[in-house]
Amino acid sequence: MATLTDVARRAQVTAATVSNVLRNPDKVRPETAERVKRAIRELGYRPNLNARALAEGRSPTLALMLSSIANPFYPEFVLAAERAARRGGYFLMVCNTDDDAEIGRAYLTQIAGTLAEGVLVLNTDIAINELCESAAVGAPIVLSLWEHPEQLPALPCVAVDFAHAGALAARHLLELGHRDIGMLVGDGCGGLQDARATGFREVMREAGLEPDDAAVLQIPDTIDAGFAACVELMEREPHLSALFATNDLLAIGALQALATLGRKVPDDVSVIGITDIQLAHQVRPSLTTVAINTEAIAQASIELLIRLIHEPRGEGQPPAVIAPLPTLVRRQST
Amino acid sequence: MATLTDVARRAQVTAATVSNVLRNPDKVRPETAERVKRAIRELGYRPNLNARALAEGRSPTLALMLSSIANPFYPEFVLAAERAARRGGYFLMVCNTDDDAEIGRAYLTQIAGTLAEGVLVLNTDIAINELCESAAVGAPIVLSLWEHPEQLPALPCVAVDFAHAGALAARHLLELGHRDIGMLVGDGCGGLQDARATGFREVMREAGLEPDDAAVLQIPDTIDAGFAACVELMEREPHLSALFATNDLLAIGALQALATLGRKVPDDVSVIGITDIQLAHQVRPSLTTVAINTEAIAQASIELLIRLIHEPRGEGQPPAVIAPLPTLVRRQST
Repeated sequence: MATLTDVARRAQVTAATVSNVLRNPDKVRPETAERVKRAIRELGYRPNLNARALAEGRSPTLALMLSSIANPFYPEFVLAAERAARRGGYFLMVCNTDDDAEIGRAYLTQIAGTLAEGVLVLNTDIAINELCESAAVGAPIVLSLWEHPEQLPALPCVAVDFAHAGALAARHLLELGHRDIGMLVGDGCGGLQDARATGFREVMREAGLEPDDAAVLQIPDTIDAGFAACVELMEREPHLSALFATNDLLAIGALQALATLGRKVPDDVSVIGITDIQLAHQVRPSLTTVAINTEAIAQASIELLIRLIHEPRGEGQPPAVIAPLPTLVRRQST
Repeated sequence: MATLTDVARRAQVTAATVSNVLRNPDKVRPETAERVKRAIRELGYRPNLNARALAEGRSPTLALMLSSIANPFYPEFVLAAERAARRGGYFLMVCNTDDDAEIGRAYLTQIAGTLAEGVLVLNTDIAINELCESAAVGAPIVLSLWEHPEQLPALPCVAVDFAHAGALAARHLLELGHRDIGMLVGDGCGGLQDARATGFREVMREAGLEPDDAAVLQIPDTIDAGFAACVELMEREPHLSALFATNDLLAIGALQALATLGRKVPDDVSVIGITDIQLAHQVRPSLTTVAINTEAIAQASIELLIRLIHEPRGEGQPPAVIAPLPTLVRRQST
């Protein structure tokens, strides 16, 4: 989608001039205005009415709390959430708790109900009952990326069927004929990614296979940890023909490790992840993964939060939205 | 609703101590802090920022405005800035303007001086004079990552000698014996990265080399664009023995493209970037780059902003901090 900046660049004017053409055309020379209008037509630019509402100071603010902004998944989520918030007429402010529950609590105390009208919480270290206490006295809180749709929390949430994602990964590797499969299980901001691992193991068991404990490593949710774990696993279990990682960061780390070890992907070893972050299609070989549809999850989360701001809920089971089912994205690594 | 005094009474401390627990927890003994936090939880106390801001004439929040949270550099900057802000006793909230100057203006109107006591602006599309107008009536604004230390803006800034970064890259490639060097020049959120390209060209000229225009591409600041540009360049100019990219994203895209094309790095083609984002050491071959020291820049920016909040500046040239000089980081790609 073309932005105002794209229009400015194309018409060789400043963003302020484009703004004037849209709002105060009298202030702009006719030739310039004509050039800007042509650029608007050519790029199919649509002035963002919400941005204008925001500019007029009528807009309330939502907060997004996350624990680890440096994990590449979160910025992608933030971008989608920010766009959804804007479409709903809200600002979005991002608070990074830096993996520290104390900082999370402090942000929550500061923002919920004062700076922000609602709070979206991603994979925090704060206990659910603390969040409930906060939501009881302050602004509504929505948990996003809840990993257990079969066991809903005591707060409104958007849940993702991560067990299904693990099952899809297992089926894909089995269909390709793999039997000796290593597992890298991430221990991320939201805790151990066990729903994904469980979904994977169940499909393996249905096929009569039991993953060898020696071929399973639990590691922090980073590219560097995926790299180190893959080196360790390949040394210990050189017969493995495939690796399942519970998220793309670990899988991308494994791809780099295999390149270093001189093991060809996918000829010697296949690799599959979960999430479909941008990097998954950008690395070579590109990463086969199970996409969770980050944009849809972010959008559903913001929409649920805005709904709860307008229609506060009463007693009873809090609302839960189940995100669209994850889907397999085949690329070069399997 | 519980007041700060209620909390103080319940925890048997002074109101000042409660205030310290909320803002400067390091100043309070852990047992006392725990007692205060328990009282806060039990009473459901929520500090009213607006009231406190009115009473004390200050609010503890800084805002960081950036245009493109999905560019992996920014989350790394945010993390360092957030830690620096917290050390200074401030919260940091992040506003992503999504490359749209209209949205940037809207955030600025909403946050500067009301939600946030100071604003750090990274590579925005908003014109400097608009930022000046905002700073004149609202909270102080600091520009970070200013690319031209020799030509300072009309606002307080932290400048980085990007021309020096380009010069270091050129010297490194020349020392390795490269003469046929392609250039990928990023056109990023902050505009064309021309200081870096100019610094590079100057060193080349001193060595009697003039980059061939056909071997220079200006492209958007993304991995995908770096990939596509590298494919195009290698087809058109197959004799090139090295590529200089004005930032790591382009260089990492080029590395993936060279892998796809079957060109060995560094044996067939060397690649060097600028920035030293996390991915630079995580990809294989790892990327030689010129590190700008993101953490030091973020910290200096936050410190300058906090200083300006406490000691508003008068007339005259606004303060400028020059960041530590960029340094070469040799890895596998050259």
